[in-house]
Amino acid sequence: MKMSELFMPTLREVPAEAVIASHRLMLRAAVMRKLSNGLFAYLPLGLRAFRKVEAIIREEMDAIGAMEFKPPVMQPGEFWKESGRWDTMGDAMLKAKSRTGADLVVSPTAEEAFTCLLRTEIPSYRQLPLSVYQINTKFRDEIRPRYGVMRAREFTMKDAYSFHTDDGSLDETYRKFGAAYRCIFRRCGLSVIPVKADSGAMGGSGSEEFMVESEVGDNNLILCPSCGYAANDEKAQCAPDTLTAAEGNRPADAQPEEISTPGVKTIEDLCAFLHTKPQFFIKTLIYRAVNCEMDLSGAPGCAGLQKTGTGSVPHYPEAFFAVCIRGDLDVNEVKLAAALKASEVQLAAEYDVERLTGAPVGFAGPAGFTAAPVIADESVMTAAGEIRMHDTVTGARKADMHLCHVEPGRDFTPWLTADVRTVKAGDKCPHCGAEFHSKKGNELGHIFKLGRKYTEPLGMTYLDENGGRKTPVMGCYGIGVDRTLASIIEEHNDADGICWPMSVAPWQAAVVPVKYEGRMKETADALYAELSRRGVETLLDDRTERPGVKFKDMDLIGIPVRIVVGEKNLPFVEVKLRTEKEAVLVPAESAADHVEETVKKELAAFASGTE
Amino acid sequence: MKMSELFMPTLREVPAEAVIASHRLMLRAAVMRKLSNGLFAYLPLGLRAFRKVEAIIREEMDAIGAMEFKPPVMQPGEFWKESGRWDTMGDAMLKAKSRTGADLVVSPTAEEAFTCLLRTEIPSYRQLPLSVYQINTKFRDEIRPRYGVMRAREFTMKDAYSFHTDDGSLDETYRKFGAAYRCIFRRCGLSVIPVKADSGAMGGSGSEEFMVESEVGDNNLILCPSCGYAANDEKAQCAPDTLTAAEGNRPADAQPEEISTPGVKTIEDLCAFLHTKPQFFIKTLIYRAVNCEMDLSGAPGCAGLQKTGTGSVPHYPEAFFAVCIRGDLDVNEVKLAAALKASEVQLAAEYDVERLTGAPVGFAGPAGFTAAPVIADESVMTAAGEIRMHDTVTGARKADMHLCHVEPGRDFTPWLTADVRTVKAGDKCPHCGAEFHSKKGNELGHIFKLGRKYTEPLGMTYLDENGGRKTPVMGCYGIGVDRTLASIIEEHNDADGICWPMSVAPWQAAVVPVKYEGRMKETADALYAELSRRGVETLLDDRTERPGVKFKDMDLIGIPVRIVVGEKNLPFVEVKLRTEKEAVLVPAESAADHVEETVKKELAAFASGTE
Repeated sequence: MKMSELFMPTLREVPAEAVIASHRLMLRAAVMRKLSNGLFAYLPLGLRAFRKVEAIIREEMDAIGAMEFKPPVMQPGEFWKESGRWDTMGDAMLKAKSRTGADLVVSPTAEEAFTCLLRTEIPSYRQLPLSVYQINTKFRDEIRPRYGVMRAREFTMKDAYSFHTDDGSLDETYRKFGAAYRCIFRRCGLSVIPVKADSGAMGGSGSEEFMVESEVGDNNLILCPSCGYAANDEKAQCAPDTLTAAEGNRPADAQPEEISTPGVKTIEDLCAFLHTKPQFFIKTLIYRAVNCEMDLSGAPGCAGLQKTGTGSVPHYPEAFFAVCIRGDLDVNEVKLAAALKASEVQLAAEYDVERLTGAPVGFAGPAGFTAAPVIADESVMTAAGEIRMHDTVTGARKADMHLCHVEPGRDFTPWLTADVRTVKAGDKCPHCGAEFHSKKGNELGHIFKLGRKYTEPLGMTYLDENGGRKTPVMGCYGIGVDRTLASIIEEHNDADGICWPMSVAPWQAAVVPVKYEGRMKETADALYAELSRRGVETLLDDRTERPGVKFKDMDLIGIPVRIVVGEKNLPFVEVKLRTEKEAVLVPAESAADHVEETVKKELAAFASGTE
Repeated sequence: MKMSELFMPTLREVPAEAVIASHRLMLRAAVMRKLSNGLFAYLPLGLRAFRKVEAIIREEMDAIGAMEFKPPVMQPGEFWKESGRWDTMGDAMLKAKSRTGADLVVSPTAEEAFTCLLRTEIPSYRQLPLSVYQINTKFRDEIRPRYGVMRAREFTMKDAYSFHTDDGSLDETYRKFGAAYRCIFRRCGLSVIPVKADSGAMGGSGSEEFMVESEVGDNNLILCPSCGYAANDEKAQCAPDTLTAAEGNRPADAQPEEISTPGVKTIEDLCAFLHTKPQFFIKTLIYRAVNCEMDLSGAPGCAGLQKTGTGSVPHYPEAFFAVCIRGDLDVNEVKLAAALKASEVQLAAEYDVERLTGAPVGFAGPAGFTAAPVIADESVMTAAGEIRMHDTVTGARKADMHLCHVEPGRDFTPWLTADVRTVKAGDKCPHCGAEFHSKKGNELGHIFKLGRKYTEPLGMTYLDENGGRKTPVMGCYGIGVDRTLASIIEEHNDADGICWPMSVAPWQAAVVPVKYEGRMKETADALYAELSRRGVETLLDDRTERPGVKFKDMDLIGIPVRIVVGEKNLPFVEVKLRTEKEAVLVPAESAADHVEETVKKELAAFASGTE
């Protein structure tokens, strides 16, 4: 393409709003523009790279036998009511009313749509397994859209779904997707960290996230340097770190005793006051759980609660819990929500804490507490009854009062025990005992075994070998296309701009005449024509800009191979890779050979094929 | 692709809901499925054809220098408020509220989005002209979605926009788009009728629609068999057909005179009663106009009206008009709306008619009427003052009373004269005088000169040669991708199924072994491999179905070239075109040559290149 015919508004200035490299460079290099809060438009140059990422994903999906569909972006609200997610998806799901008053949803994901589309289309087990996908527009109304397309409200997702007669078949397809994802990210030039995790709430199903390291990552990755265990901290587990007897970890003989702790507000204050450590204190936090699907009938303080739910998953719109955890640890809200089968948990409002505990915030405690179910983290005690903290201090549910010698199991019995702690660097790997380190990461892809979570309530069935009606098991597999593109730029840039990997570069080569006139023009035109003829995607800088502007633009937009045609080098031309400092002089007449070979070699490095 | 690996749920039964061929065949041939009212999902086979139509459109857009963008589907409501269309688009535009209460729109079109995206990106006249496009999801909340994807609520549109310093440049680009559209439809195997029309309301700008003939078409096309004039009846004009003196067309000498017409309800009744013809009667209809942008200050009956409008286009949310037209003609509401610069017009409710005319419905008349502005169709009199009806009968604005000897210009003066009649077959061409005929058609594409309708209110400017700030003129150019696909099927099918043109067929050839075993399997596999190697998109029917089922399926899905491998013909195979009755026997070993040549020859017929 000739640059005189390309709309490519590069920016010299760094846009103030952009704090990460990919956001800055996507704006500066004319990859995209912001249209509104969390809404972006790709410009011609950016769209070419975007389409290449899409094409790589498509190739690898097709290669594992997944079939592409194109469902609508707007989905009937009915499907979401049938699955029960109409109520539980929260405000991130954008709803609209049709002119006839029917509910519509701007697709945030498509488990419901594909299950409903296919539920009457699979007459028999012979049609299974079936893997389907789309690459299509999604919308999630993020509270804080930021970092450009890295966290936008509208985005493009490749979402795949698979249906199976049994878990063995699901496992096999799940593994194929995992391998395909590794291949996709490698072909995009990305270093991803596959993060395995078992999600308790899903009933033993598997899940793997594909992360890239990022200074502004949404996720804390917990990584074992020894055995390779890697998990999102929203799911990470660690080895129990029971205190030794030497540290005073002995069952309490004494009965609980109230002590006055005037002016003591924080755990630090309390430790100073009692000459103890946070490890000997049980922190009790009151949480509000939204859309809890557990059975709370008979649970303390829950007599007045009523289950609701238009779909097949009845739930409590609101329920409160007291969560006990060792004083030096933090509750991970995602792990807690999973343990409670809730769509979300949040710290209870001051009003609710006071109402439930009868004391100001900061003095909650489990002993004798009956206003809400008590959840004990496994740092306190385990489901098997192992007591991991002894002779502890808790709040006394009175202002300025604490309780000493509280013995878990003796002085209180939790309604539920669960692993809800936030695992951190320094904690120990549950598999090999090595010390974890951690990184921040962004999720690019996620593969997930869903079981019958959607097929059951949405009524998808098939006939098995014996003519019996069965419900298939399901998997789902997503990749964020925009985020993948942004991550490629995050990983491939330098001070001067983007350094596109050959596999996703908007153009593979660029011909830059120092001046577009005379012999330089002739040579540049001939090279451009010859490279295009050979199928090398080539950009010709036929603009009348100064050479400095042309070179700066070319570095900024990051075309992998640059051919500079200057008067004084002719009949030689300079060929330079974007990622290398030095150019080589090549006779103009063999430059096309040289460039074509370079492009092919680079492309080969990004070729398909499982690792 | 092997059919055993393809999800292709063909249907033997004709779905009852589908009344047109394309809808029936898209369901039966597994092109798509209905997900909900007006919402459809393409299945793998259909998506392949869909992508080919997209690719043809993309190629031809790129060929005329239009650049592809990818704006979001969800658009900020602000843009629509700035342009003024927030209020005037009506219920077809689907709106939603973000979690922060911001207005969002599911894009029904993108004049606003592109103008806002680019308004600060065109520093100077040097960047112009600029042509941009997207192929993206649109949503219009149709009142009656029907005929499958032919009139769906969600659809894919290629929408292009161009920006220019002057009308000459716009004209040139407009012509390029016109030529590209002809090429696109020809390459899709479609016979389109380009329908030129000047839309008065747009101030002399041009517009051309690309129609396909359809029994269920939304549009009535008015066609001149002699000079080639072609227009949508929403815009068609015809030659005036002033009555001759012999028919009594003489100015009235007598003054208007009330006559009692008891029991006379219809024009037919009245003609019988008065022994006259509808041509001598002025029909007066009260219309309600929505969002009228005309200046009604000082117009009869409009003193109480107030203009509103959040954007730059103030308008009257509701205004009433009395429209006079010759008794044998019909008012075309689209022409009337255009004449009144209203977003919509509709016959006034009975209540409003009685309120305004003081009489029951059926007795309105213009003489002495001051409750609303009177609009005279040009069949009554023209803007230049030419009186085209004399000595007429009108309603007397009293129950069961009419008025004779009403003389336009003498007994009433219209506030506005306009051409609002519905032109029909039998009317005369304004250019050559030949008699029109008419066809029903569906619009596949539309190109349009917009002038500064959007660039002005949305504040797009550039600096001209002299450093002056100017507002560009704009054009817009749309093609409905789904409707194009459906129209291809409408034009290319027979009793057995679809007959895809080679250019858009999901696969170009299909290898069908009578039984997938032994020598037949070997030959079929070899042919499939060889054709695929040569780049012929080939389907292999490796299913264990009966031959009859395979042949029926293959006819239904309409693959252009079928190669049947049967035991008794070996070492020959049968090659048959979908559109031909007879197969030819070809030696298996040269079948790939034969098929490749056939495919290439067919494709060449659909190749690019302006006509």
